[in-house]
Amino acid sequence: MTTSMLRTITFSKTRRNYITVLLLVIVRRRDNGWSEDLRHLFHQFMKKCEDGSWTYISEKEMLDLQKKASELSFQNVKPMKKKQFPSTLTRNFQEGLGFEYAMFYNKDERRIVCLFQGGPLLQGFPGLLHGGAIVTMVDYSISILSTKTIGFTMTAYINITYKRPIPIGSVVVINGQVDKIEERKVFLSSSVHSADEKTLYSEATSLFVQLNLEKSET
Amino acid sequence: MTTSMLRTITFSKTRRNYITVLLLVIVRRRDNGWSEDLRHLFHQFMKKCEDGSWTYISEKEMLDLQKKASELSFQNVKPMKKKQFPSTLTRNFQEGLGFEYAMFYNKDERRIVCLFQGGPLLQGFPGLLHGGAIVTMVDYSISILSTKTIGFTMTAYINITYKRPIPIGSVVVINGQVDKIEERKVFLSSSVHSADEKTLYSEATSLFVQLNLEKSET
Repeated sequence: MTTSMLRTITFSKTRRNYITVLLLVIVRRRDNGWSEDLRHLFHQFMKKCEDGSWTYISEKEMLDLQKKASELSFQNVKPMKKKQFPSTLTRNFQEGLGFEYAMFYNKDERRIVCLFQGGPLLQGFPGLLHGGAIVTMVDYSISILSTKTIGFTMTAYINITYKRPIPIGSVVVINGQVDKIEERKVFLSSSVHSADEKTLYSEATSLFVQLNLEKSET
Repeated sequence: MTTSMLRTITFSKTRRNYITVLLLVIVRRRDNGWSEDLRHLFHQFMKKCEDGSWTYISEKEMLDLQKKASELSFQNVKPMKKKQFPSTLTRNFQEGLGFEYAMFYNKDERRIVCLFQGGPLLQGFPGLLHGGAIVTMVDYSISILSTKTIGFTMTAYINITYKRPIPIGSVVVINGQVDKIEERKVFLSSSVHSADEKTLYSEATSLFVQLNLEKSET
């Protein structure tokens, strides 16, 4: 084995390790666009995870869910090709400008908490979050909860009430809980509060239905 | 007046005209990311406008509405600075990858039609539009209708039912209508169909409330 070959092997190993570490950092948490408020709240919730009652849903777990879903076919819709826009809507914005969030799951209580900071690209009325962005984040949070409760589900209905507008950039807390399960149906309720819980922004009730999925043939 | 000065004036006039024409082209319609289906449907609806019953809501009209809204203050929320993300959520994607749409308004019948093509960045379940993207487009369409009916409004509630999933890239038609007006309240219903009207994807009922707005002091 020549020195040159050795150097190449050493280099690629180093490079691979570097990429692995980089990926782990990216996958573990995506917090470059997070405000101080969101970071602070995140650390508070991480402490709640210490006794095992709550668990943080990592970016890796989210990606694994999406990957698993992409291997299934549903109502003759072809899954997207690998590497072809594998992300959900909430991950398709530059960091800090769109949806910034972290989710926590309580298995025993069938609850989910989503810390959410909506960026300027999610604007509706000037200076305020678009109602569509709020319901998107609520829907996504409770879809994760229903999926973790009974497997892949899809929204059948969502009834959302907007009590107060949410200013762009502020951090809010989405609480979701399973109210009832009837065979393939999961009924859920959710709310959107300010971080100090003093302001109620939105409330929603919804029904999610478990999917009949088959392994894709493609 | 020297030749040099004359040349400068001629040049700036030409440049100004060029910029005006360019802006008019951009503002008039934003259709670079439109599929053949959407273009075809758009032309069909443009024909409906010929007798004056329906009018196309141009990009310029949308921008004017957003500009007008940005000059108003609401519940102590400061309007955003000029040129600082003036767009609504639905305009913050690269052409063809996010929300592509055209809206038509019928004043006498208090109805709106939105031709909508959702791109790959609006993905929820792999290959399908995110429910949040669908309700965003429905909410936005009927908010334009309610605003054109009684002035600036905000969503109080929206109850949306998802009957069938919408594949990424397909063109759907959102129909919205005013059902009832009670002082500052506008009750609206809406549906999302396939272009051939054979498939019903979603239905929604909602309440929009007229805003008490004051001219911003900033």
